[in-house]
Amino acid sequence: MTAFCAAVDWGTTSFRLCLLNRDGTVLEERRSDEGLLSAKGRFAEILETHLLNLGASDDLPVIICGMAGSQSGWHEAAYLEIPCVLSDVPMSAVRVPGVKRDVRILPGLSQSNPADVMRGEETQLLGLSHDGIICLPGTHSKWAKVENGRVTDFSTWMTGELFALLSQHSMLSDMTKGVAANDETFRAALNATLDMPEHITNSLFGLRARVLLGQAGGGASALSGILIGLELVGVGVASEVTLVADKSLGDLYTSGLNEIGASVVRVDAAIATQAGLLKAASKIWATENT
Amino acid sequence: MTAFCAAVDWGTTSFRLCLLNRDGTVLEERRSDEGLLSAKGRFAEILETHLLNLGASDDLPVIICGMAGSQSGWHEAAYLEIPCVLSDVPMSAVRVPGVKRDVRILPGLSQSNPADVMRGEETQLLGLSHDGIICLPGTHSKWAKVENGRVTDFSTWMTGELFALLSQHSMLSDMTKGVAANDETFRAALNATLDMPEHITNSLFGLRARVLLGQAGGGASALSGILIGLELVGVGVASEVTLVADKSLGDLYTSGLNEIGASVVRVDAAIATQAGLLKAASKIWATENT
Repeated sequence: MTAFCAAVDWGTTSFRLCLLNRDGTVLEERRSDEGLLSAKGRFAEILETHLLNLGASDDLPVIICGMAGSQSGWHEAAYLEIPCVLSDVPMSAVRVPGVKRDVRILPGLSQSNPADVMRGEETQLLGLSHDGIICLPGTHSKWAKVENGRVTDFSTWMTGELFALLSQHSMLSDMTKGVAANDETFRAALNATLDMPEHITNSLFGLRARVLLGQAGGGASALSGILIGLELVGVGVASEVTLVADKSLGDLYTSGLNEIGASVVRVDAAIATQAGLLKAASKIWATENT
Repeated sequence: MTAFCAAVDWGTTSFRLCLLNRDGTVLEERRSDEGLLSAKGRFAEILETHLLNLGASDDLPVIICGMAGSQSGWHEAAYLEIPCVLSDVPMSAVRVPGVKRDVRILPGLSQSNPADVMRGEETQLLGLSHDGIICLPGTHSKWAKVENGRVTDFSTWMTGELFALLSQHSMLSDMTKGVAANDETFRAALNATLDMPEHITNSLFGLRARVLLGQAGGGASALSGILIGLELVGVGVASEVTLVADKSLGDLYTSGLNEIGASVVRVDAAIATQAGLLKAASKIWATENT
């Protein structure tokens, strides 16, 4: 079966390429750690190497979302300012100049007040086709409000990056190895933060103090509970949330959202991205390739 | 003039030694970066080298406060649990075994519920001889309540370490170089956090987003305002605070405390430490050396 396009999710630290047919079936897939940080100056080479290895034709078009479109990426695809109709996003994709193949990079979205930006999540929102409150947790968790297919508001929370900083570089690093679990420790830390979010830097030091005093520590689950709790109380969560996440982070956020009485509809993050890339490709190349 | 003792503030990343006479006059002083992290296994050697260079006598006693007394330091001086009379702290100093010289390390304080610890600040509190609410800002900011010379309550806030993590290792690192100033940016960020402390991870991302969208950024001052604001709202500050800090951090905390209507009495941190070490030494060696 001949591929319709290659769909690429090109993030800061990861690269994922799928060859898709017209109905979205994945014909081939490649994942690597050739994200923005390691791909500088080698974007075209990396892409072509993967396509060659998969036997893709020379004229197969490529649709890309994510940080490859940032100022420090391959080629800038300027932000679209919200409010913004999601189905209009594909027509603002920027064609990468200087390469023979038709390669397009989708733009991110921006909000001027309060200042905020997203890159990659707009493609997941496009793939979702879902109105309401959408939570996309991660290094920089996004919460978006979608009304009649328009993004009207969004916010970013530095939850995942703080978790990484604290578990890798802080005085908590030797006690927060491993993966956070949706356990009693996680929920206790989350609920404590929901009650007193202004106490988080005290709670963080308390994790260390408990270990020094021979009390039960909390590890990665407690750290995660504190930080996810802070995000949920900050967002001021609605009664129903569509959660776009992988399995492990999705379980933690679902638990947190349930703790505060919100109902959750879960969508796998990779599937949402792929659906958005397919929609964008179909819109861009609909007439040309039929 | 002959020194009465050597007084050492031996922290995680810094070392400061003074030769003091009986009234507290500093006869000689040495500072270095030979803190706990670089001094492992060489504590005695480092101390003796400085004393030799200063021409100190072989039998000059040495009083030490700080992380040198931690489990991972030179020799452990176990925490005294609060409530604790500050003037009793010196008599719990631990003599370092296996060295000819009389070297004593002062203990830290601990609190079992909520779990908390301090090392070094107890010596500053001893030096202060001051009842009330005492704020000792830093990597791990301490707030202590002292009543009739007893520490009855204290809490630690990870403010300085978070500032260091974010300004050195995060996506904000290239925009938060330099030193935070007590300026409009600092106060605006502080006040925003006082209003909505649960929004801090959103505010942190906003610093970056503003730069990406060409709006005025905030840099180190904004980051400092966010984090100090979070500490002040978390502590729930009293109307009068004794602030034990160096000049630059003291200016920021004074500004923040004034913003929320608290009056501030300032004490230089190094002077408080020195006064506490002198008091401890005087108590320990009062009879022997007179």
